[in-house]
Order: sequence, then structure tokens, then C-alpha cells
Amino acid sequence: MQATATPPLTAPGSDAVAAVVSGLRDRFGDRLSTGQAVREQHASTLTWAPSQPPDAVVFATSTAEVQAVMRLCAEHRVPVIPFGTGSSLEGHVNAPFGGVSVDLSGMNRILAVNAEDLDCVVEAGLTRKALNVALRDQGLFFPIDPGADASFGGMAATRASGTNAVRYGTMRDAVLALTAVTPNGEIVRTGSRARKSAAGYDLTRLLVGSEGTLGLITELTLRLSGIPEAISAGICSFPSVKAACDAVILTIQTGIPVARIELLDEMQVRACNAYSKLSLPETPLLLLEFHGTDASVREQAARFGEIAGGEGAAPFSWARETEARNRLWQARHDAYWAALALRPGGRAVATDVCVPISRLAECVAETKRDILETGLVAPIVGHVGDGNFHVQPVVDVDDPEEVARVAGFVDRLVARALAMDGTCTGEHGIGQKKIRYLEAEHGPEAVALMRSLKQAFDPLGIMNPGKVLRG
Amino acid sequence: MQATATPPLTAPGSDAVAAVVSGLRDRFGDRLSTGQAVREQHASTLTWAPSQPPDAVVFATSTAEVQAVMRLCAEHRVPVIPFGTGSSLEGHVNAPFGGVSVDLSGMNRILAVNAEDLDCVVEAGLTRKALNVALRDQGLFFPIDPGADASFGGMAATRASGTNAVRYGTMRDAVLALTAVTPNGEIVRTGSRARKSAAGYDLTRLLVGSEGTLGLITELTLRLSGIPEAISAGICSFPSVKAACDAVILTIQTGIPVARIELLDEMQVRACNAYSKLSLPETPLLLLEFHGTDASVREQAARFGEIAGGEGAAPFSWARETEARNRLWQARHDAYWAALALRPGGRAVATDVCVPISRLAECVAETKRDILETGLVAPIVGHVGDGNFHVQPVVDVDDPEEVARVAGFVDRLVARALAMDGTCTGEHGIGQKKIRYLEAEHGPEAVALMRSLKQAFDPLGIMNPGKVLRG
Repeated sequence: MQATATPPLTAPGSDAVAAVVSGLRDRFGDRLSTGQAVREQHASTLTWAPSQPPDAVVFATSTAEVQAVMRLCAEHRVPVIPFGTGSSLEGHVNAPFGGVSVDLSGMNRILAVNAEDLDCVVEAGLTRKALNVALRDQGLFFPIDPGADASFGGMAATRASGTNAVRYGTMRDAVLALTAVTPNGEIVRTGSRARKSAAGYDLTRLLVGSEGTLGLITELTLRLSGIPEAISAGICSFPSVKAACDAVILTIQTGIPVARIELLDEMQVRACNAYSKLSLPETPLLLLEFHGTDASVREQAARFGEIAGGEGAAPFSWARETEARNRLWQARHDAYWAALALRPGGRAVATDVCVPISRLAECVAETKRDILETGLVAPIVGHVGDGNFHVQPVVDVDDPEEVARVAGFVDRLVARALAMDGTCTGEHGIGQKKIRYLEAEHGPEAVALMRSLKQAFDPLGIMNPGKVLRG
Repeated sequence: MQATATPPLTAPGSDAVAAVVSGLRDRFGDRLSTGQAVREQHASTLTWAPSQPPDAVVFATSTAEVQAVMRLCAEHRVPVIPFGTGSSLEGHVNAPFGGVSVDLSGMNRILAVNAEDLDCVVEAGLTRKALNVALRDQGLFFPIDPGADASFGGMAATRASGTNAVRYGTMRDAVLALTAVTPNGEIVRTGSRARKSAAGYDLTRLLVGSEGTLGLITELTLRLSGIPEAISAGICSFPSVKAACDAVILTIQTGIPVARIELLDEMQVRACNAYSKLSLPETPLLLLEFHGTDASVREQAARFGEIAGGEGAAPFSWARETEARNRLWQARHDAYWAALALRPGGRAVATDVCVPISRLAECVAETKRDILETGLVAPIVGHVGDGNFHVQPVVDVDDPEEVARVAGFVDRLVARALAMDGTCTGEHGIGQKKIRYLEAEHGPEAVALMRSLKQAFDPLGIMNPGKVLRG
């Protein structure tokens, strides 16, 4: 490998910051903020990473404006931190070396909807719910649903997925093309509207999942799906987590094209009942959704029912009406908040791993044992059709002993997933908190390649420093 | 962008080559060949690129052996050209600067089949047909089918796809993880067996489609599918290419999960009839295949039938038996040879482009007009569900005027696809012959990023030089 020493990560001097702030104020006026409240709001992370506010926040409204910010920051070697909605979970929006947070919420336009081609072009600050509202009349929807109403730029940057991924894939699959500003201030467009291409290196897939460390995504071309003719959702209670996981494995192996298949363990069900005023049976539960024609949805449900029965499940309970279905999924999406409510004043350490599906039951069972032994309040939910599950210990972050206990638990969870040929994160990303696992997962040679990539794209080390790779 | 001057591409001196050949002979004995016939066979390309043989061919049998070759070649700055089956179409296996062709056909083992997880681990020299024979008893198959019985290393390197891609995706989607030897002689493993991951830069997707210019793929972890319960194939004749394309567009928009949907224009049908002894009606034709349960396949076919009828198609003709179905698809796969037989002694310039599906009918129609005006023998076949089609002018490569005429035609074909927001190649790759279009498609900024990537991975410029990027 060539020399790839990343410049040492240090905060820029106050002169450099002052020069950038002054230059930005000239161009952006009151769309530049250095007020403490705004800065803190842009570093409020939803996890246990301590908040590290930027020096300033700029509200950009176009790719050209982002380019101007980038050029100014590159000139003075000041870090740039992209900001969408702040719903990421591993400290991605923190500014450990200060710098400028670029808030893209003003870049929320839909630039084109190509209904015939099932694609659209959007600005990076648009959120998925806003897009889906706009698409509804055309019979189209964007299927990837990480729960939070995240921005598309953030979803692409963290390679987000969520409940529908088992059928519709992840952001890796959904992004056809990107516009991004590189750390040296060039505007690149990667990809085209063609469904596939063999023309050159896959810069699109390289930027997807790069967590804002290789460039700042400003526009995206996204694949859409037709709203299915029929949707039906259901709940199925199982005698054990293992029985539920085994049903999932059989469902996937049989090739039932299930659209969502989500596991809640009994603690998470209890939390959801309390938070969302539901009366679900407090046992391990699968939430399912089938998409297709009327006939196909009926066939899928019947086949799943046979599998579930074979694993000792209670009969399926259906939510056929849109409203009932939405209430159910809202409860699933509120799992994070429901977990928090188990212990008022605590913070949720939302962590995720993903394993080959044949190891899922074993991995979840061992993890539950570990939760008990460690004495944690830690419900489990998961997109189990992909082998991906979340554990959400609720922690008193002011108690160092408890924080250390949780850190040990997460270390073991990751080691368990890696030993099963899985990954340290299925969908949350590396951010700050999982950097320590990157080499254990990929090996030193692959991490050296990642470092040489970072160096090639960002020789000054200004793009979201302190994320993904150690400085 | 930082300075990314790739070292000038020149052939290594004869001393360097002699040192490498001597070192390889010590280690590989008669698995090293410098004989003319073997060298020429490893540079025989299936297209109009002139043959450029390597200095030597080494037959590797393990990743460790590939690593030894790479280290020796890096030491002496001698090019390394990966070789699978030689079925690529844009000059990928040529050695314009000499060097060592690494033949991987001896690395053809299946290392693991994880039936529960629908994945397997294979060596890069294994071919897709050999894998599918081995998987059959387990009810599994590898769905990507580029026609040729290509090796998996080559299919990944060129981001191959083919007839099934409309339903099962391309090599981009099918590769879960890779083992590769980097140009500096390190062994890297990218990815895991988890179905999805958000852990770091996507090195897997970067190596897929890099055409052997960033590293040499030696092992792959592949996603498999269950063999569908029911498969039915059919042929449908249309009054015009436009009517056929319009039927394809409606089929995709309606969300019919068709497994294959292939267009043959009337000239290609005529060629296939003659070559494969068939009696298909000599009009534009769609070949289709549906996968699913019995009920779902029937429903898909019925819906497609309605759409086709609306476009004036003749009634569907079915090939329900495996044998009849296989004969049909073999004829489709022999389209290349059938085209060649239209003009004995000619060479087929197999070229492909891909456009958004809404532009497909227009792009194919304009291309047919151009073929007529240019006076070419050039049948059209296409994976039209993806908007991807092939034109295969059959050329007398000894007639410079005709070669120039075809070159002009390909230039116009690519320009047409790019103007429609498509790509200069949907699945064949850039190789040598499409380097000239890369900047027109991606713009200078994106190509500069690709160059900086190449420089970071391969600072000595030894990995398959003269492909993808200009020297």
C-alpha cells in the first residue's frame, strides 16, 4: 500500500474558523448561525455518544451553495459535517474537531418524478415521508423505511434500510445516481437513470454508506415501486424467540416474498403496549406484511400460516384495514421511544448487528442470556428477514459503572455476530461508536484499503472527520 | 483533486519480464507457459479488439499462488491480467503492455454451500453452469445468466447480468463478499455472509465492475435463490419493435415480477431460425419466463397476455416442458453465434447500451433506422426489462472502411443512449473499446475520482493496464 497517512485529526485554529465564519456570513447572512442553541441542536445525537457541537451551522439551499461552503472550508482546512434530520444513531453528526455543520433541510425539493421509469430525482434534505405523500396520487412509493422520517441524503450516507428491506433492498439498491460535492469542492454526478450499468467504478455505491466522509450528497436519483394492489399485515405470537426465528428462516427459504417480517421480544412487546396503548399478547411476536395482488397476498399468508403453525405459533391476527395496519407499524416504529419509556430519564443505546439467517435464533438467544446476566433493561426488535436485529439497552449515562457494563455488552454482541460471519452493524453505520470494531470485522488489509480511499478522496481530512475511520 | 498522475503506461523492459518469468518458472514449473499458442489463446477476444497476447500465462490454483504472482510482478513492475474463460466482449483479457495472464480455471472449487442462508462460497474460476449442476439437488440455483458459461471472477469483474437480471439483479446484487489480491500483494476479504451491512466503505461493490484494474478476485460469496416451484416460458410475436417495447414498459410498470423478458428483432429471429433450426415467426419477438408458485405463474402469464393483446401481439405460444424451454433459451443464448453465421467470415461487434425503460422503444427504433442507413448487418437482442439491448454488427475486420463505418455507428449508439440519460454499457463493461465514452458519460470530475481510486489501489499501474481508464 502506498503511504496513506491521514493528516492528524486536530481541530483547526481559531483564526481558520474565524475566517470561514466570516466568509460564510458574507455569503449566507442569517442562514449562518453560531448561536449555542443551534449548534447544540445540530450535535444532539440519539445515542450515548456525548454531544460535540460544530463551530457554526450553515443552512444551504443548493448544490452550488454546498460547493461554496466546501471550497471555503478546504481553503482553511476546517471540517465539514453534513446534517439532514439528525436521526442517525452512532454519532454521525457530531463535530469532534469543530467545523461547519451543513444543514440540508432547506434542500427538500422533488426535482423530477419519472413515473414510467419508476424513479425520481430529489434533493438530499427531502424526507421519505414527504416524498411518499407527494407520490401517492401516482400510485408510487419509496419502499425503504428506517422508521425515523430521515432525509434521503442521510439515509444514503448511512446505507439505511429498515422494515421493508427483506423485499425491497437497502439504500445500496435504491439509489440509481447521486450528485455530491467532493472534499476539494468539485460537483460530481455518479450513475445515470439506467437500471444497470457496467461503465466504470461504482462511485454511487462507494458514496452510499460512506457516512459523509468522502463527499457531501446533495441530490439523489431513487428507484420507486408501484403501490401494491393488496397489502395485508398480521401479528403472530410464538412460544419462544427461537420458534419465531425458525419460522422466519423457513419463510425466507421457502421463497415467500414477504414485504416485512419483524421480531419483537416479550420485553419490547410490553414496552410497546405501554407506550402505544396496545394490548398485544406479551410473548415473542412477529409482525408481518405481504404485498402483491389479492390472490398472491392470500397465498403468501396461507403459506406463512402453515409454517408458523408448525413452530407452535398462535393463530394469525390480521390487520386488514389501512388504519389498523398503520397503528401497528407506528407502534413498531415507536419501539425506540417505547424502550426509553421503560426507564424514564435513561438514554437508549440503540445498537444493531446482522448475521446469516441460519444463525439468527442462536445469536438472539445468546444475546438475551447476556442481557439477563448483565442485568440490563434491553428490549430486542429486529428486521429478522435479513438476520438483522437491534438491542436497545436503556442506560443511565451519568453512571460510569453502568455505561462500562453496557459497553462490555455491546463488545460481546459484536464479537458474537462477527464469530457467526455477520457484521457489526446491519444498518446504523459505524459513526463514532463502532470505529473500534471495523478492523475486527474487515481485517487490517481491508481497512488499509478504506484508508487509502479516504486519503484519495479527502487528502485534507476535512470531510466529517472522526467517523468510520480512526484519525 | 490531489495529484493523481498514473504512471505512464509502457511495457516493462525485457529484463523485468525475464526476471518474472524465471521466478514464476521456479515456483510453477509447467504451470507457467510462454508458448505462443497458449499466449494467443489468452488474448483471443470475442470482439473486434485486435488480439494482444501476454508475455506469459500462469495457471494458479490458490489465492496464495495468486499473491505470489502479484508480489513478483509488483517487484518488477510487470502487468498482471486476470483470465477466467475469456468470454468478455470489450478486450478485457488483452495485454496491450504485455505482462502475465493469470489463468484461474484451475480455481474452480465450491468451498461451501450454506443452503439455509441461500448462499455459497466459490473460487473465482468456477463457471456458473458447473455451480448450477452442483446445486440442483439442493433445490437451489444461481440466477444470473449472461449467456456464456463465464467464470464467477469474470462475471463479478465486469458486473455481468443477463437475461434474469430484471428479476434477480446483477452481479452487483449477487456478490455478498469477495476475497481479492490487491496490486501490492495483500489478500483482502470484503464483506461477510450477512445479507446487509452498514460497516464501512463498500469495497465489495467497488471491486465488482472494476474489470481487474483494482485487484484480482480469487473467491466469492454469492447469493443463491430457491429453484421456483413453477417456471413457464413463452414466445409472443409483435407487429413492430415499438409494440414489443411498449408491452415491456407496461409489464414492468404494472409490477409483474417477470423473470426474463427478452427482445429479438426480426433479423435476429431469422438468424436464430437458421442457426438453431427453429421455425419462429420472423417478426419482432418477446421471449418471456415466469417464476413462482403454480398460481402466481398462471396469474403473471394471464396479466402479461392482456398487455400483449393490447399492443396487437399474436397469441402467446407456450413452452411448458423443460426441454422445449431449454431449447428456446439455448437459441437465445446462441444469438451471438447466430448473428455471426449471417455473414460467414465476419466478426461480431457485440456492443450494448442501457436506457431508462420509457426511452427504450425510441432508442431501439432510432438505432434500427441508423443500421439501415449505415448499411450494416446488425441484429438486435435485448434484456429489455432493464432497458438494456445489444446490437451485433457483423463486420469484415479486414475492410478499414467498413470498420470505420461500424465505429461511427457505435459512437452514435452510445451518444443516443447517453442523451436519453442511459449508459454506454449495461453489462459488457468498458474494457479497451469503450474507454473513449467514459468521460462523456460520467463527466471529467467523476472520471478524476475514478483515477484517484485507481492510483490509491494500484500506484504502480500493474493491474490490467489499459482497461477502464486511459493511461
